[in-house]
Amino acid sequence: MREKNYELEYKIFPYEEIEEEKRLSKAVILAAGIGKRLRPYSEEIPKTLLKVGGREILYRNIKNLQKLGINEFVIVTNPKYEKKIREFLNKNNINAKIIINPFPERENGYSVYILKDYIQEDEEFILLMGDHIYEEDFFYEAIQGRGLIIDEEGKYIDKKEATKVYHEDGRIVDIGKSIEEFNGFDTGFFILDGSIFKYAEELENEKNKIKMSEIVKRANLECTPVSGYFWMDVDTFYDLKKARKFLIKNSVKTQGDGFISRFLNRKLSTKISEFLVDRITPNQATIFSFLTGILASFICIFNIPWGAILYQVSSVLDGIDGEIARVSMRRSRFGGWMDSVLDRVVDFLFLTVLTLKLNPQNYFLFICLLAIFGSLMVSYVSERFKGAYKRDIYEVIPQMKCLIGKRDERIFIIFLFSIFGLLKELFIIIAIITNLRVILTSYFVWKKFGKETYN
Amino acid sequence: MREKNYELEYKIFPYEEIEEEKRLSKAVILAAGIGKRLRPYSEEIPKTLLKVGGREILYRNIKNLQKLGINEFVIVTNPKYEKKIREFLNKNNINAKIIINPFPERENGYSVYILKDYIQEDEEFILLMGDHIYEEDFFYEAIQGRGLIIDEEGKYIDKKEATKVYHEDGRIVDIGKSIEEFNGFDTGFFILDGSIFKYAEELENEKNKIKMSEIVKRANLECTPVSGYFWMDVDTFYDLKKARKFLIKNSVKTQGDGFISRFLNRKLSTKISEFLVDRITPNQATIFSFLTGILASFICIFNIPWGAILYQVSSVLDGIDGEIARVSMRRSRFGGWMDSVLDRVVDFLFLTVLTLKLNPQNYFLFICLLAIFGSLMVSYVSERFKGAYKRDIYEVIPQMKCLIGKRDERIFIIFLFSIFGLLKELFIIIAIITNLRVILTSYFVWKKFGKETYN
Repeated sequence: MREKNYELEYKIFPYEEIEEEKRLSKAVILAAGIGKRLRPYSEEIPKTLLKVGGREILYRNIKNLQKLGINEFVIVTNPKYEKKIREFLNKNNINAKIIINPFPERENGYSVYILKDYIQEDEEFILLMGDHIYEEDFFYEAIQGRGLIIDEEGKYIDKKEATKVYHEDGRIVDIGKSIEEFNGFDTGFFILDGSIFKYAEELENEKNKIKMSEIVKRANLECTPVSGYFWMDVDTFYDLKKARKFLIKNSVKTQGDGFISRFLNRKLSTKISEFLVDRITPNQATIFSFLTGILASFICIFNIPWGAILYQVSSVLDGIDGEIARVSMRRSRFGGWMDSVLDRVVDFLFLTVLTLKLNPQNYFLFICLLAIFGSLMVSYVSERFKGAYKRDIYEVIPQMKCLIGKRDERIFIIFLFSIFGLLKELFIIIAIITNLRVILTSYFVWKKFGKETYN
Repeated sequence: MREKNYELEYKIFPYEEIEEEKRLSKAVILAAGIGKRLRPYSEEIPKTLLKVGGREILYRNIKNLQKLGINEFVIVTNPKYEKKIREFLNKNNINAKIIINPFPERENGYSVYILKDYIQEDEEFILLMGDHIYEEDFFYEAIQGRGLIIDEEGKYIDKKEATKVYHEDGRIVDIGKSIEEFNGFDTGFFILDGSIFKYAEELENEKNKIKMSEIVKRANLECTPVSGYFWMDVDTFYDLKKARKFLIKNSVKTQGDGFISRFLNRKLSTKISEFLVDRITPNQATIFSFLTGILASFICIFNIPWGAILYQVSSVLDGIDGEIARVSMRRSRFGGWMDSVLDRVVDFLFLTVLTLKLNPQNYFLFICLLAIFGSLMVSYVSERFKGAYKRDIYEVIPQMKCLIGKRDERIFIIFLFSIFGLLKELFIIIAIITNLRVILTSYFVWKKFGKETYN
């Protein structure tokens, strides 16, 4: 499994890592089927246009394929859904060819049969089921395979409901929901070429309803295992919820998270994100947590403990914008930048209110100022590092992860000490922790890079 | 002329922009000549090993060529200098072949004649004079030329002393120091192939002393104009000084400079850099200006105006590390990072001392805190931008250059107001300028990038 690095991902095109002759450019998405189990919801819109984590399944599949260099899309749908699909494509500025299957009741194999007029004998293409959702890394592995992509683990799927396969010597021998012996699951993702149409035509001559699985069996299709990733077909409302839950969990960026974030804040924020992901945008979430932080500072003027509680709440909320942005494929560098800047404003304001309430003088005022300075510098040193080295400091200097003093930890300390009214102690501790962290960071960076020069 | 971007340059390999068939890999450097005019200095070491701006001429030429993808170096020198050249190569970890010219008194054409045994007939190579210094951008243009690279302007050279050329239809017709009609200057930089040796051999048969210019004339050599760049041959002590002066001027990074920096600080710092570049390392300069800033804060405890004067001095000194680093080809990302962090520490300390002296309360304490916060945030927002967008904010959002509030400007304001004892006014102004700048920056960034998302 590739290492995840969400911050950089928009710059990496993993497709370039794939050997040139193995690169594909076309993907066909089957979206003609009528989702009976999701009625009445799916009466109006095709399953592929159901939103999971703020984005339509179709959007996710297309965007994930685009990232890997696939740029030609064909969507097979039925006359009833055509308009909705077109609207979707226009709205999202996606270029795709729509092919109409006039007889969707003849099942998905018939959609493949229709394709024969649009794809050449020797042309390679990706075929996937429009109601299947896959995690990003799955695509990367899958497009390097051949034939049917199978999952030998089925970690995330409902095994009873899934289509099983039995494969031997790299070829599918048997396939079906209720076959007795099986050693894999059908992921609904294929790398095919035009030779598949021969089998589709045979079956079309023989019977009315043709299932893709029958074509697979008839063709004795090759298969490639790509196991352990999240994928599932969305068939019920429960599936939709399950997929959203997984995507949000998978979206948590642990790189820069402190202890409090990992063991407390994220557990809460992911629950809230699950609820909010289909309702608000990442930028709205940023503003919401910012305003909560401002409100916390304001309340702190009148009542320190309640202000501190709200400050900790805003710290939990602070994780939501990033989670929603990643899950709903709406990440933006602006969002990340603005979030960081607003975090600094909130931290400054809260400590400032506490300082003003203490009305400190001389040495103690100096300590308050040191605490405010250190709180800002913790972020400054690591962001400035990223500006200089174009990489995340936590990635380059793993020891950094063990240093205490990240925002979530600072806020939790402020929260605890404020509740118990230990304000003087609080400023001393914050001043020490943060400035020590800055000094240690400088030491680590110097040790690792102090001797490097370029001309 | 290419746009300069020192911050990014270490990542860009402009050679990749050059068409593949035009790429060269070998460079021959002629360093057998005895620099008579620089005696007794050059009695011991060859001119090519003289330091200009903290680095030997040879070092500059090799490193600048390496940046463009040249990786095979041949140095022709005389027996007397061999040891010094070898020491230099070892010390700098440079891989180069040394060829000995046993008769340096037969002049530089004889060094070329010797080369015939080492270079094949159809092999293309760069040939340059070891005592010539060129600015970085010259190399980029020059290696794309053919034959002798000539300069039709001669902006930086002593025209009386220079070797002139007369060219017609892209070929050298006449060459020499005192030819009457000329339309270019010999830069001492060539792109040749083995066919040149035929003419060197002819001349070697005819006479004892052979000048490169004679070979050029005999060969009716092609020429390519590359004009307007800084280059010169170092012949006298005055030349050394002149070259250093140019390099330091050329090293000033104006990108993030404020008004005070451009019109005051840089004028002073470049003078100091000229003096210091051969004496201290960039990191030493960083520490020196940091300690000056710390001392300024300390003095400020006892005497505000003197502290402020020293603070302004430290602001001038703050430019030196970067200038020295760029001129002496010792840039380091660590140096840039550390410099930024230490700047923040000094700024914080100075304003903190002023705050403590004022002993402010309530609203006015809030304004002091705002001034300290804003001073840090001005840098934070632009550094965080670089972390997110991997580009300089001044490059992407040119309006940023017009906003007041950069470090040099803040320090100058602090210096002025402190001298006149207007501390309260000072904090109000700093609080307004800096925070307004942060707000405007956010607005600019939002306006330009607020709508971008990536998946």
